Amino acid sequence: MKEADLILTDVSYILTMDENLTEYREADIVIKGDKIIDIGKDKKNEYFGKTIVCKNKIAIPGLINTHTHAAMTLLRGYGSDNPLKVWLEKYIWPVEGKFVSYEFVRDGTEIAVYEMLRNGITTFVDMYFYENAVADVLNTVGMRGVLAGGILDFPVPGAKTPDEAISKTEEFYKEHQNSEYITVAVGPHAPYTCSPETLKKAMNLAEKYNLLYHIHLSETKYEVEQIKEKYGNTPIKHLETLGLLKENVLAAHVVHPTDEEIELMAKRNMKVSHCPESNLKLASGIAPIPKMLEAGICVSIGTDGTASNDDLDIIGEISTAAKLHKGYNLNPTVVNSKEALLMATREGAKAIKQYDKIGSLEIGKKADITLIDITQPHLNPLFDPYTQIVYSSKGLDVDTVIINGDIKVLNKEVLVLNKDYILEKATLWKNRILENR
Amino acid sequence: MKEADLILTDVSYILTMDENLTEYREADIVIKGDKIIDIGKDKKNEYFGKTIVCKNKIAIPGLINTHTHAAMTLLRGYGSDNPLKVWLEKYIWPVEGKFVSYEFVRDGTEIAVYEMLRNGITTFVDMYFYENAVADVLNTVGMRGVLAGGILDFPVPGAKTPDEAISKTEEFYKEHQNSEYITVAVGPHAPYTCSPETLKKAMNLAEKYNLLYHIHLSETKYEVEQIKEKYGNTPIKHLETLGLLKENVLAAHVVHPTDEEIELMAKRNMKVSHCPESNLKLASGIAPIPKMLEAGICVSIGTDGTASNDDLDIIGEISTAAKLHKGYNLNPTVVNSKEALLMATREGAKAIKQYDKIGSLEIGKKADITLIDITQPHLNPLFDPYTQIVYSSKGLDVDTVIINGDIKVLNKEVLVLNKDYILEKATLWKNRILENR
Repeated sequence: MKEADLILTDVSYILTMDENLTEYREADIVIKGDKIIDIGKDKKNEYFGKTIVCKNKIAIPGLINTHTHAAMTLLRGYGSDNPLKVWLEKYIWPVEGKFVSYEFVRDGTEIAVYEMLRNGITTFVDMYFYENAVADVLNTVGMRGVLAGGILDFPVPGAKTPDEAISKTEEFYKEHQNSEYITVAVGPHAPYTCSPETLKKAMNLAEKYNLLYHIHLSETKYEVEQIKEKYGNTPIKHLETLGLLKENVLAAHVVHPTDEEIELMAKRNMKVSHCPESNLKLASGIAPIPKMLEAGICVSIGTDGTASNDDLDIIGEISTAAKLHKGYNLNPTVVNSKEALLMATREGAKAIKQYDKIGSLEIGKKADITLIDITQPHLNPLFDPYTQIVYSSKGLDVDTVIINGDIKVLNKEVLVLNKDYILEKATLWKNRILENR
Repeated sequence: MKEADLILTDVSYILTMDENLTEYREADIVIKGDKIIDIGKDKKNEYFGKTIVCKNKIAIPGLINTHTHAAMTLLRGYGSDNPLKVWLEKYIWPVEGKFVSYEFVRDGTEIAVYEMLRNGITTFVDMYFYENAVADVLNTVGMRGVLAGGILDFPVPGAKTPDEAISKTEEFYKEHQNSEYITVAVGPHAPYTCSPETLKKAMNLAEKYNLLYHIHLSETKYEVEQIKEKYGNTPIKHLETLGLLKENVLAAHVVHPTDEEIELMAKRNMKVSHCPESNLKLASGIAPIPKMLEAGICVSIGTDGTASNDDLDIIGEISTAAKLHKGYNLNPTVVNSKEALLMATREGAKAIKQYDKIGSLEIGKKADITLIDITQPHLNPLFDPYTQIVYSSKGLDVDTVIINGDIKVLNKEVLVLNKDYILEKATLWKNRILENR
């Protein structure tokens, strides 16, 4: 008998999401420290240690949300159903201009982190302001984040110029370079808010430290027209022309690529964060995901911020993706349930260049694990676990979440944040916004 | 002080969904017998009786699911992700042919009813076989159903000919005509499975007893082509030509109507059950709902069966609808959150011709009420209750469900069905199907 720190026994289905999509039934996962040290049938007999019996649960890798603006939970649903211009100009921007601060970001992120943990998310990519506040929350809670402070050509909360934002990103990177939970990324906002010079400077920084380059790209038709008019190219070709279409680029949205741009993205091994619900709700359009998958592009999935979604539920997001592309392309075989779940696990990890560490349940990888409770009538009968997760289960069916070997959610209760305190703060911010907008 | 049977006090938001969309805050709903007898601010001071304090809850009319095949829960997820032809011919039809019986329908309906109640649904329209089994479950549980035995030109479980199916519907109607919970409807399956003669005979029966005529219509492009080839008309015009486009018609799907057909439907006051998730997953397409709403057509919402959805979650369905049509039409103002919630309440009641009785929270109407728990971080802050229900809440946030004045769900627990027994039966059927298919 060998010593372990945590043994998940009798898991009904273990979907490893590894390269072979290895599956186990009625099997065990053994954790020591922050890592999975064994996995498979009857492993429980070889180890002793703290045990959680996981009968009637499906284990999957911790879910990865590759695009959000966590702190925007404080604006959840604010100004919904308006035309984009009204929504931004009358609702979102004025409130952001007046309220975004370290406290706003910290409190908004806490709500977001609670919701993401409850929905089985263990890692997320964030782009916003005061990312140091996000880092503080994540270090306290013990959750992984890839954090990119927004870089724009105009003054933003916390940085008056793009140069200041870039140098702050460098400082932020130096501070967290050895962190378990925090990975710093470079966040040029978009080609329509960043000049070619800013986009290049941001890439210089990313390449200097081998960081992810996170950008909004080809989100709306309006953006495509704007970039074409200004630079003579569609947004992705614009980046290519600037020499910025590289394998460290994680582009959010990518709703309107041309066929040529899809080929380019594949060739450059650029990564995509597909945000179907945000693209629908904001009327940006429907991304050609089946074409991207066919071209071999790494497609991960993101919720975007709750102001434009309005939730942080990755299971809901892959469910939407799996259905949406079938209906839109009149083909029931595209984005099948395995492909959909891969977006939120293996491909998510690849998109953020952390697949050596997370994204699949394998010996030697970090113990980031999400367990789904299948003892609910709405998940039965269960013919196929992938199908059931993608088409029938809800984020709220997540029962247990483990990050880096530590239990964060158990029996559907988030253990690492105080719900009442979070709700109080949400109401406080709501009242502050409504009284002073 | 007047006597009441049940008083819901301090409800944070009451969204009546009546003609004026009247709203109350921190108010009360008073129930006597099966009816709402009072509603508004401080009403609790005028009555005595059993009380439920509903602080931090939103009250809406019980949700109405206007198209499903409840018993097909036993085939949830079975054969998903296959081309339609393979899915039907290799998976669904053989199993239906071999297994559908009174027991199959009763057990499948119990799972479905559990899931629907848990998701806040109080009334559903069903089309399947052995509808007497559905009626038996609903009378036991105390839930409303509009039940249509499927009428097709070929032999189906329980009826060898369409004439037999029609005469069984008549018997079924006579048996339940005075029932509180059961409304019998006539269910000609579709124009491609029913000859003009069968369609007309079904309408004769419907008109004889003033019943709803529930039919699948214009679901796929293939159907449109088939009907055009056979009868020289698109499906809705085909019904018009037969004199069957009437105000008692509730058509499910309606994905591919022409502009002319939309006008016709409006003119004839025909009702639509929009099933967006089924239409996406089966790759049927995306219905032109904004055009239908603009034309003034009564658009309600349906989940379809779980074999093609794969859930019975009406809140999820209106959330999909609200987002889908914005993205597909590149217009963020279509199908706003109020319109979406209306589909599942007022318009649902109108679609089944029961708006005199249900579909809004008003004095004199039946006490069919769904309460949503808003004490969850994913529903906060809360700027607008409609927005929050449609874009942020989940079916699983439903806390309490009242039908005809009786409590069916309390504190997120379904009180009227035994979960363990249901799960056992689901597994039993799964094994039976897998062993004998």
